[in-house]
Amino acid sequence: MQHMTTEEYRSFLLDRPRTGKLATVRQDGRPHVVPIWFDLDGDTLVFTTWHTSVKVANMQHDPRVAICVDEETPPFDFVLIEGVATITDDAQMLRHWATRIASRYMGIEQAEAYGKRNSVAGELLVRVKPAKVVAQKKIAE
Amino acid sequence: MQHMTTEEYRSFLLDRPRTGKLATVRQDGRPHVVPIWFDLDGDTLVFTTWHTSVKVANMQHDPRVAICVDEETPPFDFVLIEGVATITDDAQMLRHWATRIASRYMGIEQAEAYGKRNSVAGELLVRVKPAKVVAQKKIAE
Repeated sequence: MQHMTTEEYRSFLLDRPRTGKLATVRQDGRPHVVPIWFDLDGDTLVFTTWHTSVKVANMQHDPRVAICVDEETPPFDFVLIEGVATITDDAQMLRHWATRIASRYMGIEQAEAYGKRNSVAGELLVRVKPAKVVAQKKIAE
Repeated sequence: MQHMTTEEYRSFLLDRPRTGKLATVRQDGRPHVVPIWFDLDGDTLVFTTWHTSVKVANMQHDPRVAICVDEETPPFDFVLIEGVATITDDAQMLRHWATRIASRYMGIEQAEAYGKRNSVAGELLVRVKPAKVVAQKKIAE
């Protein structure tokens, strides 16, 4: 097992549209984890979500989150990002990031349509500035 | 978005060696999430882990866990399993499951070697009986 360099870490997050798995904590203390589409704004992780989702309720109660991104084949590289989520409903920012993120995961042809769909009223933009990063490669070697 | 049938759900978990993302809660209340290799024993999720790992410390403090398994390409099917973890160090069970699990993720040729490596003293076997399952398909349609 080895630590990724900063360059390897960014490349791992951005070069392929891997999903992030966002872990939050429910009000009763149970963990919750769901896939997210994300992009990076500098080193800040950015994603959109619907305002009535479980993850939004959890983050509004406790904004501390953890996000895991991994490679599901050998040697099973992975990144764990921990930080505090901030949530906004700024329409312009939301449309900008929803479109960029959609382009990553659905392809440039569908970016406009999915960007629109994921920035309608009720969608929220979440930003997570990494407070701690674990980025490991060659786990299974 | 549609719900998977029970058959689709099992097939999603087993047909390809997808990693699970195990979410636990740290003693200070922060969420934590890391990839795991798993298999199913009936409907119980089974995985091995090292006794000094963060996830073991978290589960020893609060055994409630959530596990996410997802498809990282359209239409982004995913499964969320919530349940309570039980941890054992039974050497025979550990060797049996470590070998089965290694076969899934590293291939049958390396199953013996990785099964041995992942069942040495200090490794633990974790079992999670699903209390709640969310299994959704065609998310992006």
